[in-house]
Amino acid sequence: MPDTAIATLSGNLEAIRDRSPLIHNITNLVVTNITANALLALGASPAMVENTEESAELARVATALVINLGTISSEKAAAMRLAAQAAQQAKTPWVMDPVAVGALAYRSRVARELLASKPDVVRGNASEIMALAAQAGLVQPAAGGKGVDSLLQSEAALEAAKALAAAQNGVVVVSGAVDYVTDGTRVAGIANGHPIMTRVTGMGCTATALIGAFLAVEKNAFAAAVQAMVVMGVAGEMAVEMAGGPGSFQVAFLDVLYALEAPAILEKARLS
Amino acid sequence: MPDTAIATLSGNLEAIRDRSPLIHNITNLVVTNITANALLALGASPAMVENTEESAELARVATALVINLGTISSEKAAAMRLAAQAAQQAKTPWVMDPVAVGALAYRSRVARELLASKPDVVRGNASEIMALAAQAGLVQPAAGGKGVDSLLQSEAALEAAKALAAAQNGVVVVSGAVDYVTDGTRVAGIANGHPIMTRVTGMGCTATALIGAFLAVEKNAFAAAVQAMVVMGVAGEMAVEMAGGPGSFQVAFLDVLYALEAPAILEKARLS
Amino acid sequence: MPDTAIATLSGNLEAIRDRSPLIHNITNLVVTNITANALLALGASPAMVENTEESAELARVATALVINLGTISSEKAAAMRLAAQAAQQAKTPWVMDPVAVGALAYRSRVARELLASKPDVVRGNASEIMALAAQAGLVQPAAGGKGVDSLLQSEAALEAAKALAAAQNGVVVVSGAVDYVTDGTRVAGIANGHPIMTRVTGMGCTATALIGAFLAVEKNAFAAAVQAMVVMGVAGEMAVEMAGGPGSFQVAFLDVLYALEAPAILEKARLS
Repeated sequence: MPDTAIATLSGNLEAIRDRSPLIHNITNLVVTNITANALLALGASPAMVENTEESAELARVATALVINLGTISSEKAAAMRLAAQAAQQAKTPWVMDPVAVGALAYRSRVARELLASKPDVVRGNASEIMALAAQAGLVQPAAGGKGVDSLLQSEAALEAAKALAAAQNGVVVVSGAVDYVTDGTRVAGIANGHPIMTRVTGMGCTATALIGAFLAVEKNAFAAAVQAMVVMGVAGEMAVEMAGGPGSFQVAFLDVLYALEAPAILEKARLS
Repeated sequence: MPDTAIATLSGNLEAIRDRSPLIHNITNLVVTNITANALLALGASPAMVENTEESAELARVATALVINLGTISSEKAAAMRLAAQAAQQAKTPWVMDPVAVGALAYRSRVARELLASKPDVVRGNASEIMALAAQAGLVQPAAGGKGVDSLLQSEAALEAAKALAAAQNGVVVVSGAVDYVTDGTRVAGIANGHPIMTRVTGMGCTATALIGAFLAVEKNAFAAAVQAMVVMGVAGEMAVEMAGGPGSFQVAFLDVLYALEAPAILEKARLS
Repeated sequence: MPDTAIATLSGNLEAIRDRSPLIHNITNLVVTNITANALLALGASPAMVENTEESAELARVATALVINLGTISSEKAAAMRLAAQAAQQAKTPWVMDPVAVGALAYRSRVARELLASKPDVVRGNASEIMALAAQAGLVQPAAGGKGVDSLLQSEAALEAAKALAAAQNGVVVVSGAVDYVTDGTRVAGIANGHPIMTRVTGMGCTATALIGAFLAVEKNAFAAAVQAMVVMGVAGEMAVEMAGGPGSFQVAFLDVLYALEAPAILEKARLS
């Protein structure tokens, strides 16, 4: 099954580079630059538009939409609702990143509202995914969130992820040392990546943005999420080899994404 | 004529480094950091102030003003209007970057309002300049905008740029493989730069900010725009030689701007 | 006395890396990314939350709070007031960075209001500290602010800093070629750092964030401020040796922070 999920990776990577799909991002203030640069390096065309006047207009014509709840405000929350609803109506595939949901009450409420617009994929860390599932009544609430970082292993959230995916009829990704991707039935594990990625801000947000890029060219959301997480993890490993610390890692990561070839990714992928 | 336009480049570069002119930026969330760093590397003193309480106050005392319509909001639009009006009254030279105008209705309206405060320079890609000229009734509307990226060659917007410059009594720059600068009568073409610059976010916005820095020391807006675009393109070419991809390009670009000497720029400039 | 102030540096650096204290940042749009990455590289866990719905909630549970007045808005100012009050009530240590206070009327008023919530540390350049002291009636007003950059030497603000620290019963840091840290009685001078740091945006803001990280593990605010400024200056010097300009400096600075060992810092510290 994992092999099936990445069978189209080579073609999808080529499609992103050929078509430069327009990816509409409503994301947090910390990661706008690295997110835009990662999407550009991969071959996509990012647009950051997060006001209430324009977000629905763009979400309707974009090839995919990325909503990230970091540095949310009431204005941005309103823009997110409009964009998510427009995406659902226009069948623009979209992915949600519930940054720090569970740790802060306001954004937990906003996240719950956004789930009603049926994101194709939700990607978070273990704390965030467990909080989302718990507030949907699917699992018992668990402690463990600390701001944007999770104190839990991704394994701990696997049942919550499956329950959330099934309830949403979508795909859920739990990031961690092993990333899990599930549609409620199937589960893929991706054991790529490197611990230094937790010492660079916005790596999770970038993973979410890359899922957006793959959703733009791959109709199967499970496959899109698996492929994006594999690219993320393998690119991270390749960048670590070129880097002397988190600063040079970030630079190398963009260079690697830009030059990435499908055979190298498939060779290094550790899927289960 | 191109030679005339860059005759003062050496002196202007020195003036920026000697005087560190205060450049007031109201720019988009994606590029604040790279814009500030590019201005600092060149020798200017950037200040990012974008609220309604302070923007007019700063625009009056700044040496130049840069307004960039990316990630606009109603609050930022109000701050832009106040800053643009204050700049016009105080004779602070200013440059406008109409990011994604034509693709999104709200910002197209804001851009039209801002044109009333007579920016000394407008810099955009072909789609953006054609949209501005079309909504001023100067040319026929054309399709071709896709979010922030243009699908058109810069040549296609040259007539629109000349008409807009003449109508505004200002200078218009169309960025592309060849950058065109026109005051409605004269046209300079700058064939510097490198395709990888389209894979790094904020290169256009940085060009606009550099125009702001040159406007701070050069009274002739046509010369200021030509010189900034030459510096941008040549610095880009020099950075490419040091870079292994878009991540290391961005790093090298700042190092190059910091160390740039006028003779090297003039030697590499491809002006027509 | 300076030796006393850095006696706990080694243990504090270890404590930051072991405990990853949650640092709540309300900071400016230009430096969110570099600030978060510097805190992560040092070993802390940054969270950027700046809305009125969540800022008090997070300030109560965070280990330290950093408030930076750059790119302030009325919404952010309201979030700052709520966070500062919550921090004072919950005894969360906090540090304030009065970016461009004195140069712009609105933020000068906001800074004065925030001082009522008793920041443990205030860090600014000479112009900013003199403006804060002057508007508190402690010293005569002085000219010299130019946007975010100071035209004054840090020495010029030393008396203002001492008066402000005494009046606030807190610690004040004046950044410059020599950084001064004072609690109103004691004064430490730190002669580390490099001029290229003034050509990279957000170095002052990063210093303030590092003070936040040290406040999270060190009860003595004077010692926390001295240690953060020493780390900042020494890391800057080490990064310069690896860098070819301001772009590569920024990259090297994060790599250095990540790998920094206490003995190397103590060896290079120039304290008086």
